[in-house]
Amino acid sequence: MTRHRPAEADLAAPLAAGEPRPGLPRRGLLGLAGAGVIGAGVGIAGDRIAVAQSLFTQSPTGSSGAAPSYPFYGSHQAGIVTAAQDRLHFASFDVSDIDRAGLIELLQDWTAAAARMTAGHGAGPDGPVGGVLDAPPDDTGEALDLPPSALTITFGFGPTLFRDASGADRFGIAARRPAELTDLPHFAGDALDAGQSGGDLCIQACSDDPQVAFHAIRNLSRIAFGRASLRWSQLGFGRTSSTTRGQVTPRNLFGFKDGTANVKAEDTAQVDDHVWVPGGDSQAWMTGGSYLVARKIRMTIETWDRASLREQERVIGRDKGAGAPLSGGTEFSTVDFTATTPDGAPAIDEAAHVRLAHPDQNGGALLLRRGYNFVDGNDDLGRLNAGLFFICYQRDPAQFVAVQSSLAGHDALNEYIRHVGSAVFAVPPGVRSGGYVGQTLFAG
Amino acid sequence: MTRHRPAEADLAAPLAAGEPRPGLPRRGLLGLAGAGVIGAGVGIAGDRIAVAQSLFTQSPTGSSGAAPSYPFYGSHQAGIVTAAQDRLHFASFDVSDIDRAGLIELLQDWTAAAARMTAGHGAGPDGPVGGVLDAPPDDTGEALDLPPSALTITFGFGPTLFRDASGADRFGIAARRPAELTDLPHFAGDALDAGQSGGDLCIQACSDDPQVAFHAIRNLSRIAFGRASLRWSQLGFGRTSSTTRGQVTPRNLFGFKDGTANVKAEDTAQVDDHVWVPGGDSQAWMTGGSYLVARKIRMTIETWDRASLREQERVIGRDKGAGAPLSGGTEFSTVDFTATTPDGAPAIDEAAHVRLAHPDQNGGALLLRRGYNFVDGNDDLGRLNAGLFFICYQRDPAQFVAVQSSLAGHDALNEYIRHVGSAVFAVPPGVRSGGYVGQTLFAG
Repeated sequence: MTRHRPAEADLAAPLAAGEPRPGLPRRGLLGLAGAGVIGAGVGIAGDRIAVAQSLFTQSPTGSSGAAPSYPFYGSHQAGIVTAAQDRLHFASFDVSDIDRAGLIELLQDWTAAAARMTAGHGAGPDGPVGGVLDAPPDDTGEALDLPPSALTITFGFGPTLFRDASGADRFGIAARRPAELTDLPHFAGDALDAGQSGGDLCIQACSDDPQVAFHAIRNLSRIAFGRASLRWSQLGFGRTSSTTRGQVTPRNLFGFKDGTANVKAEDTAQVDDHVWVPGGDSQAWMTGGSYLVARKIRMTIETWDRASLREQERVIGRDKGAGAPLSGGTEFSTVDFTATTPDGAPAIDEAAHVRLAHPDQNGGALLLRRGYNFVDGNDDLGRLNAGLFFICYQRDPAQFVAVQSSLAGHDALNEYIRHVGSAVFAVPPGVRSGGYVGQTLFAG
Repeated sequence: MTRHRPAEADLAAPLAAGEPRPGLPRRGLLGLAGAGVIGAGVGIAGDRIAVAQSLFTQSPTGSSGAAPSYPFYGSHQAGIVTAAQDRLHFASFDVSDIDRAGLIELLQDWTAAAARMTAGHGAGPDGPVGGVLDAPPDDTGEALDLPPSALTITFGFGPTLFRDASGADRFGIAARRPAELTDLPHFAGDALDAGQSGGDLCIQACSDDPQVAFHAIRNLSRIAFGRASLRWSQLGFGRTSSTTRGQVTPRNLFGFKDGTANVKAEDTAQVDDHVWVPGGDSQAWMTGGSYLVARKIRMTIETWDRASLREQERVIGRDKGAGAPLSGGTEFSTVDFTATTPDGAPAIDEAAHVRLAHPDQNGGALLLRRGYNFVDGNDDLGRLNAGLFFICYQRDPAQFVAVQSSLAGHDALNEYIRHVGSAVFAVPPGVRSGGYVGQTLFAG
């Protein structure tokens, strides 16, 4: 039985049924696209070039959150100020025994696949059913009928990529490690599991369809086979932040609105000041990039659920229904930390989360939060293993350290949470069409 | 500081701010509703009574799959022929050291909460912010702003509810165990983990919003505190079956369309013949119920992804793109098991999944499938712990046993899958308004 189906990208002339279709190997595609021809369709079939044509523009985030697809190429990586999508699949990788050239090749391959997938196509040029019958498809197929679903794919580099645990400079980049990129300090109460922490590389895949996010991580893992392997990964089923003004503030698993005071994409001055690495920094290759901190925070929800509504609101410092600060007003009212109750007590408890996390209490440190609710089954005692997979972006991880130092010591919430995973990554700037993610690190 | 917010259900006259609101305790609510007054609003506030008014009607499944809410009460439980929702949270429980009256009370409490939540309300009458400040809220709040999202909650009874591992008849129901409800036999290749198998009770929560499904399981677990505890639980992020004709056939993580030949709700004769337990069965209390089999099937997707497209299609017996049988036609064409290729080989391999799973090969056994794709992170080798959480409904688990016996021995797919969890439950008929789930077992 010989059959042949057209490649998703019609790269070659029709062949006799069953004949092998040479096509362009995945790595070859990038080589062509990287030859400086931009938006001209060379090596990239017509329907996919729209992505490349957004060359070096800011990833549009819009305000509706309903955009069906985001361009992969731009001055910043997408998935940071992009309107937070509903679902997450996050993956941390350890790089295998490859050299500098091998790492660059991996990043090139990931770039090509990410650009394709965010546009709603398969991970490779042939797609899930377009190749020859006698070879494995270059895409795994579970997203075949699904739209782009607002997919963004964001890449980051961990401290161990620059110098591993043994001190080795495996890729000749140790001298280019930004001073900002160091392991986070130990915080009071940390109960970190090494198996859910760290990593040489990370990929954050966000989408409004979890199958699309999964598909991205699966195919990028597959492309990395033999070169990098999954260290840990995390699904998040519900966003806990809004990153644009058009989005409704979602709720975390404590039942409270989360991220009300988040940095919003529309506040471009704030974004520039707090999220993007400015030019003239210690490492110019990071200009336009950002730093990602991920913290897996297990919530002891059974304990929380036994706390009174008064206690819950005291701990958070906000009203559970509307999300208004206990100092009064509505959700978006400015928090008045000096307000008192009729009996003279602070309206916002001294240990309230909203107080200790506030920039005013932390030298002005602002974070762009982008976390997700998670559930990983239950433990042997029948307690749901649930919580918040906290992600934040900032121009310097010191911003997170300032906030978390404040929280770790005194936050009333600490009675109900436990940090079990932690990681920090340098998120390089966006990719020029024809380039690859992290190119400025290697070639800048 | 005293504040008071109105209860979601305005059950009591206004109180002075901060005064305790007596309301109706959760268990009390059911007592009133169960007093034979149907659809009259006694004990149930107006906006929620619409649910009760659908007394003993078939849960409508429609054909659009877009229904925002399904009534909890009806002749059959919802969540079986209901148009398969996008997301799943499934939970299996072990009953603690309670007696028959305690078990009945748990089922009554679960019924009241399920009826509320499927209508888009909180788990208890006060809701997440409607109670008194000095008591824990009777709902956990993370679904506060979310619509019903097509939530269905389906309850089942495991064999160990009738007689536990020690042989004890804890609830005086051993004599009423249906002959059909026995542990599944061991199948060739089974690699079952006891921690992901069995259970005295199960709850299947399906919704188009995963946070709504999670919220249901969390609150039902909370209600069960001290009476039943989670044994295992499973999130599913993407449906792998259509149960109505209006739904697009989804794809499993092998990238193939799944459930093409599923029983559809519109085929009422088929549903009656294969899904619902008929009257006159060995145990009349199950009339209108069904049997649920759950199998957690780990897919070794990395191995699968290295198989050629030809091999993948041979294994399944269908074309990967359109889902047409390899004997020709389109997705919904009848499979011709006698068709041959030009060189005389069977078009559908003798070991193809579609052949071995087909009713014609299994004495006509038909299953209503309702499974979900899952990912539980990754293993220590960096392989995604992913697969299919298979759920099927049938009037007799022997139907599943027939199909699985055929598959376990010979299915070409066995090279790429491993069954790691297994459970079977008797799913009692639907609940009359004022009654409770499983009432016919105890009172029939």
